[in-house]
Amino acid sequence: MTSALYPADRLGRAATAAAAAGLDALLVTPGADLRYLTGYDALPLERLTCLVVPAEGPPTLVVPTLERPRAESSPAGALGIEIVGWGETDDPYALTARLLGHARIVGISDRTWLMHALRWRDAVPGVRHELAGAALRELRMRKTTEEVAALREAARIIDGVQEQIQSMRLLGRTEREVGRDVADAILAGGNTTVNFVIVGSGPNGASPHHDVGDRVIERGDAIVFDIGGTTPDGYCSDITRTYVAGEVPDGFDKLYAVLQEAQAAACEAVRPGITCEALDAVARDVIADAGFGEYFIHRTGHGIGLEEHEEPYIVSGNAEPLAPGMAFSIEPGIYLPGRHGARIEDIVVCTADGGERLNLVTRDLLVLEG
Amino acid sequence: MTSALYPADRLGRAATAAAAAGLDALLVTPGADLRYLTGYDALPLERLTCLVVPAEGPPTLVVPTLERPRAESSPAGALGIEIVGWGETDDPYALTARLLGHARIVGISDRTWLMHALRWRDAVPGVRHELAGAALRELRMRKTTEEVAALREAARIIDGVQEQIQSMRLLGRTEREVGRDVADAILAGGNTTVNFVIVGSGPNGASPHHDVGDRVIERGDAIVFDIGGTTPDGYCSDITRTYVAGEVPDGFDKLYAVLQEAQAAACEAVRPGITCEALDAVARDVIADAGFGEYFIHRTGHGIGLEEHEEPYIVSGNAEPLAPGMAFSIEPGIYLPGRHGARIEDIVVCTADGGERLNLVTRDLLVLEG
Repeated sequence: MTSALYPADRLGRAATAAAAAGLDALLVTPGADLRYLTGYDALPLERLTCLVVPAEGPPTLVVPTLERPRAESSPAGALGIEIVGWGETDDPYALTARLLGHARIVGISDRTWLMHALRWRDAVPGVRHELAGAALRELRMRKTTEEVAALREAARIIDGVQEQIQSMRLLGRTEREVGRDVADAILAGGNTTVNFVIVGSGPNGASPHHDVGDRVIERGDAIVFDIGGTTPDGYCSDITRTYVAGEVPDGFDKLYAVLQEAQAAACEAVRPGITCEALDAVARDVIADAGFGEYFIHRTGHGIGLEEHEEPYIVSGNAEPLAPGMAFSIEPGIYLPGRHGARIEDIVVCTADGGERLNLVTRDLLVLEG
Repeated sequence: MTSALYPADRLGRAATAAAAAGLDALLVTPGADLRYLTGYDALPLERLTCLVVPAEGPPTLVVPTLERPRAESSPAGALGIEIVGWGETDDPYALTARLLGHARIVGISDRTWLMHALRWRDAVPGVRHELAGAALRELRMRKTTEEVAALREAARIIDGVQEQIQSMRLLGRTEREVGRDVADAILAGGNTTVNFVIVGSGPNGASPHHDVGDRVIERGDAIVFDIGGTTPDGYCSDITRTYVAGEVPDGFDKLYAVLQEAQAAACEAVRPGITCEALDAVARDVIADAGFGEYFIHRTGHGIGLEEHEEPYIVSGNAEPLAPGMAFSIEPGIYLPGRHGARIEDIVVCTADGGERLNLVTRDLLVLEG
């Protein structure tokens, strides 16, 4: 837990952002928002944990008494904020309601469970609920130098796993068997969590969110490996490479060359000011111009940080302009139903004058013999 | 995926339960509710997946087009319900709103992310949100014979991990190192996920939700091992055993004997009709009568099934009477701050005339020499 990852001024900046967004207070529950603001990595549970951040006044962290030692020994314990425990038969919603004072509009963490929000609704009638993201998205989208370093380290680890895949035995094994080895490598590389492992061989590769199945990998298969983990610092990785086993299937080299060009063009187009939808169009246009437009069936990418998917989303209709510090995937794909699919994905960070790809493992089409 | 785990009549029973709870429809998002009703094990994502279950009329499963192949190949694909895909630039909230028709009160899954609920609020003004749990809790709390068998299998696997712990090397190693071996054993035993691993040695054992730390285990430590996983069927395990390393610390044998008696008394008190709060009191009274009342600082237990913590909660203030098929933990503990803690936990199922403990590994105090 590097304290530089959780600078002490974040709570003040969050309060200012809340006021600017028209929110009287933020209610921040376990997950990425809480970790971002305090460094406290709490699990979402039915027992309420909540950081109350008034637009004016000191924040308070409300925790089950059981969790108090964990909260105090986390970086949150060093922030000098009050930590209030509640016992097993207390009502934590009434307790947080008292801390809200006369707030009329509160921003609640986007991924808070509805069961908590409805308890607040009933405990404090007349208060309007909005998303804390309205205040926190601008902060969380722009990564600090330390956060970019954490994402770079996450990328370095997951690049190493892709390199290991290139020498794994694939032929004659099921996607599930190979996927288990990949998951082991994700943990062995230094991650604390396997976020996902997609091994899409042959026709399974044409379903972008296929995970692993019992299909046996055969010579002549294209195989999509889309993998990600979380480092001890809490930052996520996400990389996709597509390989072929033994020999290149008919027509696949042309498809792959188009995809590689599209992915490179989008990565090169990253710079402050370009909108997310324009960046999506850069990749999409290359693929459409080559006649594969109808086979690129998803957005070009998603933001990444303490969450695997977060803002900004690189998708048609999102007019958000890129700014330095934004980190996101660029992952166009081409999917031919019943045949095979291909996707190439890197995490890219917008810099002062362009973009930095964090994933560096080769994107050339590799014919694996294992 | 055993189809007997997901009987086809559940959707009809959910619709009936919704009507009985005064709900015009249920909106069921990824998680335990969706898996329970359809067998579809979908991940919660920012892209909306939602099963719409009107109190009257056929249900519909709304999924991102990307996820459609996964949904169709899951048990949900065999239920004969309509599956509707939405594309990357469609509005899935407007789509689900159309499926709601003239519904005025909808029950949304308890753990739905607030970001989805607020999008529905804005897409369909005037509709009141309640928790789907109001309709589904009665169904989910009473496990079927097949569900109890799945929990029994989960318990058998995790019992095996406790047995492995009894012969692990502990002395001179950190909680974190031991915890890593325990996590490996949880997966090697046949679980798909490690839900949690608590290794609380010496004074760390006095914090019930301590996970693992860098403390080195020493001779004379009491050590709390509270561990759980999820099986491929989706059912959770949860067991706690407390051991001592090398020799029994001063006074610990008396404390442990009280705890063992309290846990046994509560397990023996399980039968239809006893309330959750009365069951909590059975364990609490034994501990209080022995003078340790102030050191039992949490509820006696929680329900378990497709979620690690679910209803019924065995806690003071919960007047819910037990009924056959209810499954829950019985896990009293005694925690002496700064010294050590002890907890004994089994999963117990309420039967027609008593209770069945699913965890069978010994609860006697073991002095481990490893």
